[in-house]
Amino acid sequence: MAKNLSFVLEKPGSVKYEDRPVPELKSEHDVIVNVKYTGICGSDVHYWVEGRIGNFVVEKPMVLGHESAGVIHSVGSAVKTLKPGDEVAMEPGIPCRRCGFCRAGDYNLCPDMAFAATPPYDGSLAKYYSLPEDFCYKLPKGVSLEEGALVEPASVAVHICRMAQVKPGASVVVFGAGPIGLLCCKVARDVFGAAKTVSVDVNEDRLQFAQGYSATHVFRSQKASPEENAARMIQECELGPGADVVIDATGAEPCIQMAVHVARAGGHFTQGGMGKPDITFPIVAMCAKELTITGSFRYSAGDYALAVQMIGLGRLSVKELITKKVKFEDAEEAFSNVKQGKGIKWLIAGPE
Amino acid sequence: MAKNLSFVLEKPGSVKYEDRPVPELKSEHDVIVNVKYTGICGSDVHYWVEGRIGNFVVEKPMVLGHESAGVIHSVGSAVKTLKPGDEVAMEPGIPCRRCGFCRAGDYNLCPDMAFAATPPYDGSLAKYYSLPEDFCYKLPKGVSLEEGALVEPASVAVHICRMAQVKPGASVVVFGAGPIGLLCCKVARDVFGAAKTVSVDVNEDRLQFAQGYSATHVFRSQKASPEENAARMIQECELGPGADVVIDATGAEPCIQMAVHVARAGGHFTQGGMGKPDITFPIVAMCAKELTITGSFRYSAGDYALAVQMIGLGRLSVKELITKKVKFEDAEEAFSNVKQGKGIKWLIAGPE
Amino acid sequence: MAKNLSFVLEKPGSVKYEDRPVPELKSEHDVIVNVKYTGICGSDVHYWVEGRIGNFVVEKPMVLGHESAGVIHSVGSAVKTLKPGDEVAMEPGIPCRRCGFCRAGDYNLCPDMAFAATPPYDGSLAKYYSLPEDFCYKLPKGVSLEEGALVEPASVAVHICRMAQVKPGASVVVFGAGPIGLLCCKVARDVFGAAKTVSVDVNEDRLQFAQGYSATHVFRSQKASPEENAARMIQECELGPGADVVIDATGAEPCIQMAVHVARAGGHFTQGGMGKPDITFPIVAMCAKELTITGSFRYSAGDYALAVQMIGLGRLSVKELITKKVKFEDAEEAFSNVKQGKGIKWLIAGPE
Amino acid sequence: MAKNLSFVLEKPGSVKYEDRPVPELKSEHDVIVNVKYTGICGSDVHYWVEGRIGNFVVEKPMVLGHESAGVIHSVGSAVKTLKPGDEVAMEPGIPCRRCGFCRAGDYNLCPDMAFAATPPYDGSLAKYYSLPEDFCYKLPKGVSLEEGALVEPASVAVHICRMAQVKPGASVVVFGAGPIGLLCCKVARDVFGAAKTVSVDVNEDRLQFAQGYSATHVFRSQKASPEENAARMIQECELGPGADVVIDATGAEPCIQMAVHVARAGGHFTQGGMGKPDITFPIVAMCAKELTITGSFRYSAGDYALAVQMIGLGRLSVKELITKKVKFEDAEEAFSNVKQGKGIKWLIAGPE
Repeated sequence: MAKNLSFVLEKPGSVKYEDRPVPELKSEHDVIVNVKYTGICGSDVHYWVEGRIGNFVVEKPMVLGHESAGVIHSVGSAVKTLKPGDEVAMEPGIPCRRCGFCRAGDYNLCPDMAFAATPPYDGSLAKYYSLPEDFCYKLPKGVSLEEGALVEPASVAVHICRMAQVKPGASVVVFGAGPIGLLCCKVARDVFGAAKTVSVDVNEDRLQFAQGYSATHVFRSQKASPEENAARMIQECELGPGADVVIDATGAEPCIQMAVHVARAGGHFTQGGMGKPDITFPIVAMCAKELTITGSFRYSAGDYALAVQMIGLGRLSVKELITKKVKFEDAEEAFSNVKQGKGIKWLIAGPE
Repeated sequence: MAKNLSFVLEKPGSVKYEDRPVPELKSEHDVIVNVKYTGICGSDVHYWVEGRIGNFVVEKPMVLGHESAGVIHSVGSAVKTLKPGDEVAMEPGIPCRRCGFCRAGDYNLCPDMAFAATPPYDGSLAKYYSLPEDFCYKLPKGVSLEEGALVEPASVAVHICRMAQVKPGASVVVFGAGPIGLLCCKVARDVFGAAKTVSVDVNEDRLQFAQGYSATHVFRSQKASPEENAARMIQECELGPGADVVIDATGAEPCIQMAVHVARAGGHFTQGGMGKPDITFPIVAMCAKELTITGSFRYSAGDYALAVQMIGLGRLSVKELITKKVKFEDAEEAFSNVKQGKGIKWLIAGPE
Repeated sequence: MAKNLSFVLEKPGSVKYEDRPVPELKSEHDVIVNVKYTGICGSDVHYWVEGRIGNFVVEKPMVLGHESAGVIHSVGSAVKTLKPGDEVAMEPGIPCRRCGFCRAGDYNLCPDMAFAATPPYDGSLAKYYSLPEDFCYKLPKGVSLEEGALVEPASVAVHICRMAQVKPGASVVVFGAGPIGLLCCKVARDVFGAAKTVSVDVNEDRLQFAQGYSATHVFRSQKASPEENAARMIQECELGPGADVVIDATGAEPCIQMAVHVARAGGHFTQGGMGKPDITFPIVAMCAKELTITGSFRYSAGDYALAVQMIGLGRLSVKELITKKVKFEDAEEAFSNVKQGKGIKWLIAGPE
Repeated sequence: MAKNLSFVLEKPGSVKYEDRPVPELKSEHDVIVNVKYTGICGSDVHYWVEGRIGNFVVEKPMVLGHESAGVIHSVGSAVKTLKPGDEVAMEPGIPCRRCGFCRAGDYNLCPDMAFAATPPYDGSLAKYYSLPEDFCYKLPKGVSLEEGALVEPASVAVHICRMAQVKPGASVVVFGAGPIGLLCCKVARDVFGAAKTVSVDVNEDRLQFAQGYSATHVFRSQKASPEENAARMIQECELGPGADVVIDATGAEPCIQMAVHVARAGGHFTQGGMGKPDITFPIVAMCAKELTITGSFRYSAGDYALAVQMIGLGRLSVKELITKKVKFEDAEEAFSNVKQGKGIKWLIAGPE
């Protein structure tokens, strides 16, 4: 029987199962987790298909997966808050803790970040995975391991809403009704107190899902200029002088353009999706309205903790997003489905 | 003798002198100022040449000028802090005081702003000008009326530095070595405590001026990609992981692109100049570095007061910027010189 | 029939009904409201009993009341968003709009504030009351005029939560289970996303009410040192390293002392109640934990609007607080009941 | 010859010199510093005299001293930015890097902080001292090791000014003209851009020193009520509606009371000194003015770096504070002088 069966990307387009050594505790602060569920992220699929994202290039075989939850298998001698058997959500990026970013609380910007399934670091689609105690978050009573695997995208949404400074009563427009966009609407409304959440997409099915899940309003972009689409959205969704906050979870040029036009003077726009490196951008409109624009990259101090807490309180409901759970041996098929845009979130069970 | 000689833009390209009625006190809170010096701004020249800036179109003759200082001529019955003879810098935009922006302290975003020399509102290139008491700032002892006319562009720079969150010890790169860019370097270093100010321009003379006035470093952009120029600047100016703050005072596409590449992760970029409405923009670089980008538009609560205070303390020196003072009757010639890019700041004396 | 029947405090302990002139529109921006419901506030009772609060002394007869809602009776010529018949909540303090505080968005600190029922300004326990358009908030569909009268204390709670920087997921301890304390719990949890709200009081009935209304936990202080009470609260309410936020809505010395001890390092404490001018305060504990302490005074930009919006969305439920509605002619009896500590919030209907 | 001569507090009132083992590199990230200068802090003296500060009790012999600079003696294998011979200022508190405070950037609040000369951790009054690379700050060219030893109190002042949110143009009142108070005035004015710095003390000599060093105004408290002293200070120092920022570096009850009364509405007050645990405090005055009060405890991310940078740029001058440098063998005498309140800052040279 395999000791630590792992789902490995060998090279672009080619994955295989491999029995790798069980990880050892490298530090007294580390724990070994028996991974139970892992969600598939667009970036996993991107590495599978392209072998790279930007400057991150897969140069040697790499275990995929980074949206995981599991059960504590063993703990280092200095670990105080976790014991074998505890169920945890696993934060997949471990920063250096010593650079200026880490010391200032912005560890997501750490240049020495070791992030699961980002080359050259292995991911968590394996039986066992090692990480520090403080990057494991005990699941509150009543939260399943499946939900635990959804803490990762929920934390992405929490970080985006934080960067976007969503405040109680805000109107929030979210471009994209994929997992992150849907979670941004949900987190904005149910965690940060937004009064209005507009989900924008071109896919009618997704908008319908959004309406049932987390959007107070939906808007389907038409073939028209960004200004026209923005003007129509403001009118149809009663956004008054424009939206307080706009979030883009697509990376698509027309969405980003529309985002600038739909924001109110003094509003916030946060870019949460990555697409083409360069786009045509309405800089004067941005400037004259004194918009604040921020990028949002992964998650940082407090984001995972807040997502877990809010799921535990029943205020942030994520299980609706689970399309299907598949066995570990069916991982490739699930990847294929995600690649084809089927469903919202696929989970892969850990190896037996 | 003319009662209220005014310098009027009749239509694009055509100015004239006109004797207009002396303004009356419309409110008990208003004062009438005898205007003594007015600086010429790029926007004045733009209206003169083009007759419009964006959606603001000159549709009827309009007095030009909005960078003024003068002497109080008369005061309304409720005015408490000013009396005839007081010398004041004049803040040229009067907001409605009642909308959400005004009530929240962001009066520069007021949709009902009445701004001098922005259609349809007359400017201050006249003998007399009326405005509310609280938009006049008494010049501290030792500050000349010429310096008073420079409070306006200094306040633009103060607002930009505020929006850009320049902090003590920051490294600040400023694109453009015109009046606003030069003042941004100056204010960033001498008022907000920046440790390093890099002035970037293509004009060697301007860079030389910048070095003597307010830049700790200068950088001349080359014909190269924005990434290459940024990399070279980081190396030559020892910007480490990139600049903490980048300010663009040009509106030029290559500058804005370079700005994104020269900023450090987690850094700030503030757009203070207006150029082409749409530009090619490196959105992924912005997002992955989690930059905060803001537009900066005019000035708001506290900006004028801080500029006046710092000039009065001798910490913010502005008189170096004055290229020449001309008589009121030579206003058109001065406009012509500014249009040709001669000098830094031209002042027009008030009519006798 | 009386034209503008008003409930007037003549001198300490002595009230009377008086028919006063119907107010006139002093500005084109003003409206006249036909007042329909007014809640009784502790400060009204305080003026009735003592004739003063701090430096504010009742020196001539003054109409009482400032927690009001009503129907627009007439509007000035410049009013755009309201028309006769509209139902509105009335924000009772009108700032000067011109001082540094007003211009910076902190109008509650305006030294020239004209606040209803704070000497020398008349209050709103009258048939008609005049105020500027922008201090009237149209009640959303489904919100009653009774609820409209509760917007005032709800806005006090919104402002307190803002000053206290209540964030999603926060643990919030609120001292005092009177109207303001109860609303602080409610607003902290249902508007600002607090995960835990602990209501603290010595009155068991009030704590029971709090538990049903807005507190996730309640705590009854015992005769013990502030440190002991704080330690017990932390243990019983599972506050871990202490509460993220502590709000005092009592002004009572033992509560404020406990507040400092129950807050976590780096936590926030906001003082929302007024009691003895000087108290014994644990300054070293405050300092070593780097607490942030703020006072909260009335409400400022955006507070009223957020309260109205959240009541309209059904997220902020206030009607539970209404103890009883009485007729205008029974106002004095209602005041007497409030003085005796009966019930939570008494409403007085406007004169017929 | 002694290998690692150390100045050890045996028990209250009793110190001795002891040859201790040279520290070893416990981590590949650590360095060993040959300590060259150490300043004496009030807390060192307090431990010497009392054997405790609050809950920190000296229960076994402890090396004193924590304000040190020295020369790198050896470096661990992972150290990249330092090499033997480099001159560094040494930040004396090493946090756990793993708790919520550390991860959020507030490492000064870390409950597992190991702080030099705070029991049970040894201090740096020794020949050699070991600490992590990232807690050593290379001295810029032109900065002496003596100045390096003053980085510690300068960082305390930087942190206080940060907590107090000193902004360009602010008026800042600082109670206490000892080393920390003097540095607060200096840092507020020369680093954070304060326009006015008022040094308050009862000792005329200290005020005279303050005037020459860092205060634009001085004020000597009289035997009068805090309100009266505050009113007189506002008048004499032309503080208008009160001071924007007030800093207490004394911990003395009358100063803290005066602080509240001298602050303007909406102002900031930061407590930087520790005195009696409980004081009489004007809570209503604080609340009605909506003051923001913060404690300030040691220093956190960026504070040491900013102090070193500003000393290196010549903007923050600290050498004026050095009263005298004594040899290591004269340490006790220097402690005795500090205890008697002689001079400002005494430095002890490292052992030969």
